[in-house]
Amino acid sequence: MKTIITEMFNIEHPIIQGGMHYVGFAEMAAAVSNAGGLGIITGLTQRSPADLANEIARCKDMTTKPFGVNLTFLPTVNAPDYPGYVKAIIEGGIKVVETAGRNPAEVLPYLKDAGIHVIHKCTSVRHALKAQSIGCDAVSVDGFECGGHPGEDDIPNMILLPRAADELEIPFVSSGGMADGRSLVASLAMGAQGMNMGTRFIATKEAPVHDNVKQAILQASELDTRLVMRPLRNTERVLNNKAVERILEKEQALGKDIQFEDIIEEVAGVYPKIMSEGTMDAGAWSCGMVAGLINDIPSCQELIDRIMQEADDIIQQRLGGMLNA
Amino acid sequence: MKTIITEMFNIEHPIIQGGMHYVGFAEMAAAVSNAGGLGIITGLTQRSPADLANEIARCKDMTTKPFGVNLTFLPTVNAPDYPGYVKAIIEGGIKVVETAGRNPAEVLPYLKDAGIHVIHKCTSVRHALKAQSIGCDAVSVDGFECGGHPGEDDIPNMILLPRAADELEIPFVSSGGMADGRSLVASLAMGAQGMNMGTRFIATKEAPVHDNVKQAILQASELDTRLVMRPLRNTERVLNNKAVERILEKEQALGKDIQFEDIIEEVAGVYPKIMSEGTMDAGAWSCGMVAGLINDIPSCQELIDRIMQEADDIIQQRLGGMLNA
Repeated sequence: MKTIITEMFNIEHPIIQGGMHYVGFAEMAAAVSNAGGLGIITGLTQRSPADLANEIARCKDMTTKPFGVNLTFLPTVNAPDYPGYVKAIIEGGIKVVETAGRNPAEVLPYLKDAGIHVIHKCTSVRHALKAQSIGCDAVSVDGFECGGHPGEDDIPNMILLPRAADELEIPFVSSGGMADGRSLVASLAMGAQGMNMGTRFIATKEAPVHDNVKQAILQASELDTRLVMRPLRNTERVLNNKAVERILEKEQALGKDIQFEDIIEEVAGVYPKIMSEGTMDAGAWSCGMVAGLINDIPSCQELIDRIMQEADDIIQQRLGGMLNA
Repeated sequence: MKTIITEMFNIEHPIIQGGMHYVGFAEMAAAVSNAGGLGIITGLTQRSPADLANEIARCKDMTTKPFGVNLTFLPTVNAPDYPGYVKAIIEGGIKVVETAGRNPAEVLPYLKDAGIHVIHKCTSVRHALKAQSIGCDAVSVDGFECGGHPGEDDIPNMILLPRAADELEIPFVSSGGMADGRSLVASLAMGAQGMNMGTRFIATKEAPVHDNVKQAILQASELDTRLVMRPLRNTERVLNNKAVERILEKEQALGKDIQFEDIIEEVAGVYPKIMSEGTMDAGAWSCGMVAGLINDIPSCQELIDRIMQEADDIIQQRLGGMLNA
């Protein structure tokens, strides 16, 4: 399949693995890229620019195909060394950067000068238009369904994708709720040029996380996610568990007086441990509603091949058949 | 286009006009059916079974094509004369009934014996499976995006439609967030056999509502709806206005002590007046997020023709082109 996104990113299939903290290591990105999609290394999961440079080099040892790096701009007291990370990305020969969080305007000129394509993750049409106006090449349109940070507007992709198509001139991919060939064809029909998957890629053979994480996704239904940190206007969709129930009770009890410090350990502090050691109830961890559509742990190659075959069948046989009946 | 739903309901296009209180009069249903979709008269908008019988007769004067009747089972102290309405439906020769709200098991045998196809509106997979198990012929799967009552699960159609496809044996149509050919093709790709539109049909020339209602839909963006009655677990998505702000403040202030009686006048009492007189700020009225995708007031024929042409173009040119490039 050929779309504006496959051409822009020089990939075989219009499928991107979204940046995921403590999941997007070299093993994950290389597996997706080797399967013809675009793998993404999560920049800030690496503790320093030197570590990121090393991770990029490791990934290059595992694939000759293009892969990208995610760089997330979050409101933090002690900002990471963003110029250092950008330098590691440029010197590593990376050609695609996924930005997320705050507006990436500050780093954009450096990336563009290095011939890097920038795709910015947005949860609203107004943010997508802003990304377009500052010179991003594409956006990833992230619906209310998504794992992680859906923003505060609560607009699902069934509305957000056609709205983005009506307003944007740059190409976009769908993100949030994406699982299979059905998601891909639906996204393309609503104006996207490809799709971004997060949670679905965690439940693959190559995802470098503890098996308990994968099993938790398999066992979850679409009803099993919760939104935490809404009172802080930093909403995150996570899989429900005992820690999440504690966090929600604390949010309820403290009301408007809640501070990030009150819950930071359970929403962020234990995250690396959950992913690597599989201590699932130790805290909150991002998971999309799409968990309800995930029932197996294929290799990335098997997953992407299956999606593309299903998309082909839906377009030619199902939709074509309805038209020509 | 031919699908299981067009065959089951004997209609030309897989597009259904959902039941809408004080909108689904004979004029609305006839216009949709004459355009090749399935128009629906809202049963309980008629004050008595005799009034419904008269409305069905009026609709038959306006169209020779099939149309249906919506029958909603809501928790009410003084239940309407459901047996009487069912009798009017059967004697009126109606062949499709859209049920909504509570489980329609009590009336189902009478409808089925009369050769009527029943499509039940559901906001969850478990309710859809229940509808299937009691003998409904089809379901209308209503996502979080929808105007009116989305239930309490908050699952959007990007997740709910493929989940329904994975679980159901009976056919289903998508509902909530549906506006155009993009919505239709996306729905069909995710497993639906057609789509149900509500808000989109209010913004048509023939919709028998005050022009202020249509203009309010045109002016609204996807960000302009709100959820009222959530504390009562009878959530309704409505267009935001001054009355809605008052209702939400009252819900916040009363918390768990709120009673339906505290807000009934503004969420239901003035509804007929709003629709017929266009007193838009007098109370809350149902409107889907899809308002953000509605920018004109075509005739039903123009709207449906445009949707089908757009769907054809998306399937053959856009999706077919991506595959064969």
